[in-house]
Amino acid sequence: MRSHYCGEVNETLEGQSVSIVGWMHRRRDHGGVIFIDLRDREGLVQVVCNPEDAECFAVAERVRSEYVLKIEGLVQLRPAGSDNADLRSGKIEIIAKKLEILNASETPPFPLNELLDVNEDIRLRYRYIDLRRPEMQQRLRFRSQITRQLRHFLDSNGFLDIETPILTKATPEGARDYLVPSRTHQGEFFALPQSPQLFKQLLMMSGMDRYYQVVRCFRDEDLRADRQPEFTQIDIETSFVEEEDFMNMMEEMIRGLFANVLEEALPNPFPRMTYAEAMDRFGSDKPDLRISLELVDVSDLMGEVDFKVFSSPANDPRGRVAALKVPGGNNLSRKEIDDYTKYVGIYGAKGLAYIKVNDIDAGREGLQSPILKFLPDEVISAIMQRVEAKTGDLVFFGADKATIVNESLGALRVKLGHDLDMVERGWKPLWVVAFPMFEWDEKSARWHALHHPFTAPRESDLALLDSDPEKCLSRAYDMVLNGTELGGGSMRIHKTDIQQKVFELLGINEEEAQDKFGFLLNALKYGCPPHGGLAFGLDRLVMLMTGAASIRDVMAFPKTQSASCLLTDAPSPIDDALLKELNIRLRKNPQAE
Amino acid sequence: MRSHYCGEVNETLEGQSVSIVGWMHRRRDHGGVIFIDLRDREGLVQVVCNPEDAECFAVAERVRSEYVLKIEGLVQLRPAGSDNADLRSGKIEIIAKKLEILNASETPPFPLNELLDVNEDIRLRYRYIDLRRPEMQQRLRFRSQITRQLRHFLDSNGFLDIETPILTKATPEGARDYLVPSRTHQGEFFALPQSPQLFKQLLMMSGMDRYYQVVRCFRDEDLRADRQPEFTQIDIETSFVEEEDFMNMMEEMIRGLFANVLEEALPNPFPRMTYAEAMDRFGSDKPDLRISLELVDVSDLMGEVDFKVFSSPANDPRGRVAALKVPGGNNLSRKEIDDYTKYVGIYGAKGLAYIKVNDIDAGREGLQSPILKFLPDEVISAIMQRVEAKTGDLVFFGADKATIVNESLGALRVKLGHDLDMVERGWKPLWVVAFPMFEWDEKSARWHALHHPFTAPRESDLALLDSDPEKCLSRAYDMVLNGTELGGGSMRIHKTDIQQKVFELLGINEEEAQDKFGFLLNALKYGCPPHGGLAFGLDRLVMLMTGAASIRDVMAFPKTQSASCLLTDAPSPIDDALLKELNIRLRKNPQAE
Repeated sequence: MRSHYCGEVNETLEGQSVSIVGWMHRRRDHGGVIFIDLRDREGLVQVVCNPEDAECFAVAERVRSEYVLKIEGLVQLRPAGSDNADLRSGKIEIIAKKLEILNASETPPFPLNELLDVNEDIRLRYRYIDLRRPEMQQRLRFRSQITRQLRHFLDSNGFLDIETPILTKATPEGARDYLVPSRTHQGEFFALPQSPQLFKQLLMMSGMDRYYQVVRCFRDEDLRADRQPEFTQIDIETSFVEEEDFMNMMEEMIRGLFANVLEEALPNPFPRMTYAEAMDRFGSDKPDLRISLELVDVSDLMGEVDFKVFSSPANDPRGRVAALKVPGGNNLSRKEIDDYTKYVGIYGAKGLAYIKVNDIDAGREGLQSPILKFLPDEVISAIMQRVEAKTGDLVFFGADKATIVNESLGALRVKLGHDLDMVERGWKPLWVVAFPMFEWDEKSARWHALHHPFTAPRESDLALLDSDPEKCLSRAYDMVLNGTELGGGSMRIHKTDIQQKVFELLGINEEEAQDKFGFLLNALKYGCPPHGGLAFGLDRLVMLMTGAASIRDVMAFPKTQSASCLLTDAPSPIDDALLKELNIRLRKNPQAE
Repeated sequence: MRSHYCGEVNETLEGQSVSIVGWMHRRRDHGGVIFIDLRDREGLVQVVCNPEDAECFAVAERVRSEYVLKIEGLVQLRPAGSDNADLRSGKIEIIAKKLEILNASETPPFPLNELLDVNEDIRLRYRYIDLRRPEMQQRLRFRSQITRQLRHFLDSNGFLDIETPILTKATPEGARDYLVPSRTHQGEFFALPQSPQLFKQLLMMSGMDRYYQVVRCFRDEDLRADRQPEFTQIDIETSFVEEEDFMNMMEEMIRGLFANVLEEALPNPFPRMTYAEAMDRFGSDKPDLRISLELVDVSDLMGEVDFKVFSSPANDPRGRVAALKVPGGNNLSRKEIDDYTKYVGIYGAKGLAYIKVNDIDAGREGLQSPILKFLPDEVISAIMQRVEAKTGDLVFFGADKATIVNESLGALRVKLGHDLDMVERGWKPLWVVAFPMFEWDEKSARWHALHHPFTAPRESDLALLDSDPEKCLSRAYDMVLNGTELGGGSMRIHKTDIQQKVFELLGINEEEAQDKFGFLLNALKYGCPPHGGLAFGLDRLVMLMTGAASIRDVMAFPKTQSASCLLTDAPSPIDDALLKELNIRLRKNPQAE
């Protein structure tokens, strides 16, 4: 129907006839002439309807916002001085010779030709209008381009795109599974996969050697701002490879992606940091390295002080006391410090001690803090020395269980970075490595897998599985970019005895292991190759690369935070007759049963 | 870990050291030497372990089938006369210098080094072993290659890969939806999509212009041999295009696929056939043109005969009498004809009349049939003339409602083609076009949509929607290859009034339409562009192109015909506590409620 996209008509076509289709974006009547901006995927072009062309003009008079038009006309340069530098087509206009209304439109619920802050619920309800906005179009195009690039890299490197089932078996963390009642096997359920983890491992056992899939995953949980019930992974697995080679390949892929799609250079190689160092310096296993603020451990200085808040965690093997110096921070107001104290409270911190450095050379007199009185001179000066405090700085302190100190000061560090405009521009990727295999869960008094139960321990740490599980490091690795985990993975366990030992440590008894993972344990017996892999979160990656504020802005049809679709009104009630066929029914009074 | 894949080691590497990894496929002890065939994704290579190399030899002695090995060795040409022409590596062997067992294997449940007919249930239960077989590896690689090719074509033509939701709204044909209870909205359900039909139309309304997706779809129905509860579509939609241009583009894509992947040339252009002609000549809207047998209508000859079985359908406007000539078929035995009679019975035919042509020049005397006595001479000779019968032929007859005649003789035609070895080699694609919008359903006494309710009627047939719906043709098209429907699609309705009229005709009242499709009807109001598209069945396409006998052979982890996964044992029972969280429970006695 068209000879050109609207956005592609430019001065090289001067004097030629073109035919374009699109949406009526804006209309101006000026000096008896009607100007129409016609919009399609590629952009806008200005169409001129002159009253001399009566037929065309009459149609133009009827045209309203978002009408779908077909226009034939002649390309001519705009009159001198009326170029629009913001448009690719800004040097030309099209003199309409024929104008046809392909479809009318009611007045849209929000205008597309003005920059307006539209309520997100309205945007989601009328998603088909929201998606016409150029920035939304750009994001989805960009997403398409990103997966194409990643696929191209993986295809070129011998990875096979293999599909794994969506209707699959419930996992032990079944609480987060979406369930699907089976009609054929009444009383039984499929689960939607939280990831194709076991299937990709089975594909390695199947000798596929290199696998990838751009695959939908599902998690039925309370939705934080940044989560969706369904999300997309770039899922990758490979056999007969060591983590070093594999990580190099993966960072090459991401470097290539940024170079090709954004024309941005990422470092080569990505820096690597152990989990221990990341927690120590940044209180996080996904540190945002654009922010130079760092946690400094001062536990060793606090063991003897006459202040329980500091001395007690300093003497607790699972405790920590850490300082966070804010250069130039001593002009923070009382109110600001109170707000930060509330902020760390979210992460369980019971307070937020601080010292303001008014004059570093004046000793105790040059400092200002409610806690000064608890600290002897030599401790104060040791702290100031260790954090390299200067006049005008402020030093925050966290003292609690290490997990709480790390989480709260780690979050505070990032918040301060943004609040005080201390975030460097650009991209700061890194690998975090040498994760512990297990972490101790206080509540359940059990070991939990820091990654998942199929993650291999380091060969050199195998003996620690028996003697000191907490010290046993895994062969896991996370790729982190600007404080976001882009992807994570590991070398997997490929031997039955180690898998069984890990299940035992995690408190999964033999019967449960057989019931849940029997097929994996079986498969390990029949010649499982050494293998490992990684999964990238595509939505998160696209969000970072496009600078979108919400994950919902990089998906065509996202769900709300209460996991519903405002456009189609899903989920929705179902006829009892249909439920009957599935042999299920609703509980009338869930509390009573 | 490897320097080369096993299958890639060849005579160009003579004299070089290589390092390979893979599975122990076969072991032979011969003249004191151990020969190991090592297997990986790329093929087999022969490894020689000499007793002189004691360390290596000792390991080789322990090696059993499907052990995972790492071998370093020297490539040398095989001794004269011992080349294996079946292997890419057949001119060389590797003299092992180092042999390491990376993992052991129990004896596999079926051998991989012998061609055996293994029970499919065992293959599915041990899929990770089954998939190691070269033909299964080939099929999945091929599938990966096919999607890559199709993606490449679509990317190059400006189609954007956009993901649509899997957790979506139940459709009116809800009986076939898989349902997913919502935790957040208790008592409500998502449905898994039977296709992303409405979402892709909404993407066109969103101005995306060209969309595609390789997408999982779901259908909860009794599984015929060739169906799976989840299957994959190449889903395509485009705006501002006429069907001719779009069909040309789609066949160019498929021609390119066959040329690139199979090096086979498909005709250019594909022949086109109306639905009416396809039913008339082949009794099917997906005719296998490799079989030259055709149905010939003889209704007009039968109106007056004194044989109700023929005259009554001949006089019924929805009836049909048709002949199917089988060249050389008069040597079919009584038993064979009985079997064919039973066969057409599956399709509802109440019998299968026939005439054997012993001597075409001898008139009635040269023919042999139980029905001859009912037919006057002039009718007999008119039939013989019309089907161009020759001595030695046999003519079958179908007489019933047209739907039954078409289905039964259409199926018989294909069966005869295969039984009598009348299937031409090669590829016979075609487009079937000019489908009716509606077909009358006798049971429900209602019009049904032949495609789906969003299919556009031909512009020229719009008036028929009111006057004679049965005659109204649609803008639908199906691509058929060798008797299989590869894909189907249509131009869609893009105007509210026509969509409403079609809903009315289908007996969907306004309330129901609003409830089920309100969002689509709404979207039509706000500037919907003319659009249309198509969806290809990927599994079917791969099956055809690989010559696989079952759809399960082109999927990594298929379900059985009772929709269960023998590998993971899904679906499975779920703890009542989990069901409680979803506010559902099992009916104890479904019959009683």
